[in-house]
Amino acid sequence: MITIAVDAMGGDHAPVPEVSGAVQAASTQDVNILLVGKEQVLQAELKKFDGWKKLPIRIVNATEVVTMEDNPAKALRTKRDSSMRVAARLVRDGEAQGWISAGNTGAVMAISKTVLGMIPGVDRPALAQAFPTIKGKPAVLVDVGANVDSSAQMLAQFAVMGEIYSRLVFHTESPSVGILSIGEEDHKGNELTKSAASLMKALPLNFVGNVEGRDLYTGLTDVIVCDGFIGNVALKVSEGLVDVIKHMLKESLESTIASKIGYVLSRQAFKDFRKRMDYSEYGGAPLLGVKGVVIICHGRSNDNAIRNAIRVATESATEHVNDRIEIEIQRWQASSTNDPEV
Amino acid sequence: MITIAVDAMGGDHAPVPEVSGAVQAASTQDVNILLVGKEQVLQAELKKFDGWKKLPIRIVNATEVVTMEDNPAKALRTKRDSSMRVAARLVRDGEAQGWISAGNTGAVMAISKTVLGMIPGVDRPALAQAFPTIKGKPAVLVDVGANVDSSAQMLAQFAVMGEIYSRLVFHTESPSVGILSIGEEDHKGNELTKSAASLMKALPLNFVGNVEGRDLYTGLTDVIVCDGFIGNVALKVSEGLVDVIKHMLKESLESTIASKIGYVLSRQAFKDFRKRMDYSEYGGAPLLGVKGVVIICHGRSNDNAIRNAIRVATESATEHVNDRIEIEIQRWQASSTNDPEV
Repeated sequence: MITIAVDAMGGDHAPVPEVSGAVQAASTQDVNILLVGKEQVLQAELKKFDGWKKLPIRIVNATEVVTMEDNPAKALRTKRDSSMRVAARLVRDGEAQGWISAGNTGAVMAISKTVLGMIPGVDRPALAQAFPTIKGKPAVLVDVGANVDSSAQMLAQFAVMGEIYSRLVFHTESPSVGILSIGEEDHKGNELTKSAASLMKALPLNFVGNVEGRDLYTGLTDVIVCDGFIGNVALKVSEGLVDVIKHMLKESLESTIASKIGYVLSRQAFKDFRKRMDYSEYGGAPLLGVKGVVIICHGRSNDNAIRNAIRVATESATEHVNDRIEIEIQRWQASSTNDPEV
Repeated sequence: MITIAVDAMGGDHAPVPEVSGAVQAASTQDVNILLVGKEQVLQAELKKFDGWKKLPIRIVNATEVVTMEDNPAKALRTKRDSSMRVAARLVRDGEAQGWISAGNTGAVMAISKTVLGMIPGVDRPALAQAFPTIKGKPAVLVDVGANVDSSAQMLAQFAVMGEIYSRLVFHTESPSVGILSIGEEDHKGNELTKSAASLMKALPLNFVGNVEGRDLYTGLTDVIVCDGFIGNVALKVSEGLVDVIKHMLKESLESTIASKIGYVLSRQAFKDFRKRMDYSEYGGAPLLGVKGVVIICHGRSNDNAIRNAIRVATESATEHVNDRIEIEIQRWQASSTNDPEV
């Protein structure tokens, strides 16, 4: 059975959603959980759940906590017994097959790279975020913030990794892969997208070329590749806009008696709608390219998000996403070395 | 009185919304309109409006039309009697104080730059898009697609131009200016945002530093500066997301009888909501930095969008936005030349 280490101290509301999400995962999924953090704190939190002792959950003590304000490089150097670092070590040492954290994203990335190392052939790790689309099935945006000022070579590697993630974890058959740009025609874009597109054309992918911002949510493209600066802006603009729309819609709906009654009658519909738009259903963003499964959750993650992140981590481990990445990246590099034209 | 030239042949549904919008503007605003395009077509369209002859509208004939599929550079070279080019010439020759178009954006930009020239001291023109915020007043994003791979110097110029536009056209007192990045802290961002931020700090602006994607719609920052690739992605992701949300919400609301009734009762609220989210209320995006007022509208513009674009063009001309840009850019350049540290 797969074992997943959960950094129980990282998120904004830690350890509450972490522990609750872990209990839910251990009750409903086929997974062992290692809850990593301050032993006494976690014991007290776990006691709130009747019968937790029968669940496959074990606490692993870690005396230090990386905060959201910590500088990632400094946290890496100085907090050697942080819950993050201990969780990463459990993966490195084979005691867990993956780890998840809702903590400081920069620190999770730095610790993962250092403790686990990179998959041979991958230059830089990338964060892949799944999100809801109009078609119902999720699309994957990669990179959403692990790197800025990416090279074309990096973007092509993100494409390979994102395609494998979509295929193995979301079970998309032959996922279509596009590059986020400012027009569908090949000549539209910037220097980076143009050179990345020409690299990606040569890969054994279902490459569909440029995808515009407005097509992110249509679900027509399964994997959309971009530099982490762009991906982060696209994701955060979306988050902000959803908040604004909720706010404005509520204001409009409360403005007259008729619409207030209408709002009450439609409550279930709004609930369904919110669930469909809810990122937490998609279970965090994997940091692809490091040797080991790492899932990064939003700092504001609730127990549902944690539970889903554990599910994605388990599935990534079961499906051997990282082995697949290593094989396909090396196959690609071998073929480009053999090809006299490249 | 201000005269505005309207490219009546450019938009997806030309000349219907162009002519209708022009008639509405001429009826309600203090402005003369020159409707530019194929004379017979425009005459036939104008005849649909009773009493148009009493309005300050005149047709200016142009025999050619730039289509959405035309290559901008080619349209510039070959279609010398296009409605765009004739409209731009009217501005150059002082017969109009500004022009608007819902046509091929690339062609409008190329024609504007060539026919009107640049304001001295401005390296490249920038498209400034106003959009709705939670605070009710619009914010301005600049550049939303006139340039890719911008330099830090260009971004600083966009800041100066955007601030003047916000101040003079939206009457924002001392507009706050931020740079779109991936974290609020100074050290977060890419090479471009970091060097642009250090230039912008030295400018006589109410500069607030980095702004995250999720703060675009809060209305806390009045002018948000970015490279045109990023701005275009941010804008189009937003457009796409609004479409998806409308679609999903409608689906959810139609799923049960109670929610269907609720939807009917809330219809007015949804209408208000749509109006608040409607970009066309903000009247197109000015192309800042060229010598002359140019407002670029969405290809799908309706008559309301055209009418508002004419209003924004008139206001930009009345408030001498371009003179102000020329003065402030030159003042800044003079001060940085005198400053031995720069």
